[in-house]
Amino acid sequence: MTHPVIKDLTRRYATKRYDATRRIAPRDMEVIKEALRLTPSSVNSQPWKFIIIESDEAKQRLHATFARKFQMNQKHALEASHIILFAYNPCFTRENYKRVVDVEVASGHLPADKYDEMMDKGFFFAQMNMDETGCNGHWTRAQTYLALGNALHTAARLGIDATPMEGVDKDLIGEVFRKELGGYVCEVALALGYHLEGQDYNQGLPKARLPLEDVVTVI
Amino acid sequence: MTHPVIKDLTRRYATKRYDATRRIAPRDMEVIKEALRLTPSSVNSQPWKFIIIESDEAKQRLHATFARKFQMNQKHALEASHIILFAYNPCFTRENYKRVVDVEVASGHLPADKYDEMMDKGFFFAQMNMDETGCNGHWTRAQTYLALGNALHTAARLGIDATPMEGVDKDLIGEVFRKELGGYVCEVALALGYHLEGQDYNQGLPKARLPLEDVVTVI
Repeated sequence: MTHPVIKDLTRRYATKRYDATRRIAPRDMEVIKEALRLTPSSVNSQPWKFIIIESDEAKQRLHATFARKFQMNQKHALEASHIILFAYNPCFTRENYKRVVDVEVASGHLPADKYDEMMDKGFFFAQMNMDETGCNGHWTRAQTYLALGNALHTAARLGIDATPMEGVDKDLIGEVFRKELGGYVCEVALALGYHLEGQDYNQGLPKARLPLEDVVTVI
Repeated sequence: MTHPVIKDLTRRYATKRYDATRRIAPRDMEVIKEALRLTPSSVNSQPWKFIIIESDEAKQRLHATFARKFQMNQKHALEASHIILFAYNPCFTRENYKRVVDVEVASGHLPADKYDEMMDKGFFFAQMNMDETGCNGHWTRAQTYLALGNALHTAARLGIDATPMEGVDKDLIGEVFRKELGGYVCEVALALGYHLEGQDYNQGLPKARLPLEDVVTVI
């Protein structure tokens, strides 16, 4: 299939080695940031923070979080152009949702007289997803994957290489980036940059997806 | 920002009323199906099934699943061009992962002598995400949101309207589509089509996202 969407999604792959001399242009980073912000989420909850590791100092801090595990990803901390920590709110509250509905009204999206209705109908989904602890982190975590899917598609369109990484030490990240996370939890990160020519074993290999009939059923 | 990525993501919105006379062209549906298949996932697990509701008969079955709740979405079942049920494997097993690694080798992506290494290193992530029941449905559900993010971006590029819906009755869907789901669980669906001109209150409204500084931190 030669459609641009399919070309982009076929060309993208999980980069295993980055060119430490190449940096993403600021104008592309602006697109990525705005694309993250524009990601849709359940009842527009936006229960996320995206911490973008850009400076050498922040990269050293991230590098240190691989001390105990997932060392296969450690080099990306220093060699990739940027790494984005995708963090979710482990306990999305009515107060958090109020902030969203405030913006709904301020932006002109929601008429002010629908405020209470949106609070009730929207927050219902946050409540429906509460677990035995009274929190809804499984639900908010899933929303960050929606942002991850959007970011990966965006990077592919921009010709930027990427590596989604569940192989991050959430506990050490929680300690080292405590201030930036503000109580949010990072269990997945995205390295971005450009692969190191000839040194990335994963580059240019055929895709290994299950056949269409295994995953898609049209009825 | 006038970048095509931002234009697409700004124009897309949760459609609230579909034009029942407009259908997505088969060539666009082929792009959507292939885009779903190409979605990346943790350790390439692909723990999903996408059930595409296309026929009138399947739409009637879906319509019936809104009998008890989420009636605000019921009309989409009949008026949207297509509805995709995103279903996850509630308990992703070593046997399931074997199927993936088989395809890794068969496709030429993975050298045959790395089979056992990929089985062990990859399945570690499925194990890491097992909960007290020994299952990992929270993890596989999150992967389907990655596919949802990819599908929403794809639909936006194709100029197709969409409505992500957590407002679906997972129990009734589980009963009515038991055969197609084969034990997988659907908690989110995506309506696709074209909005009904002048009848969709959500169309053309300003976006209501939190400000960039609330969700993005560059360090």
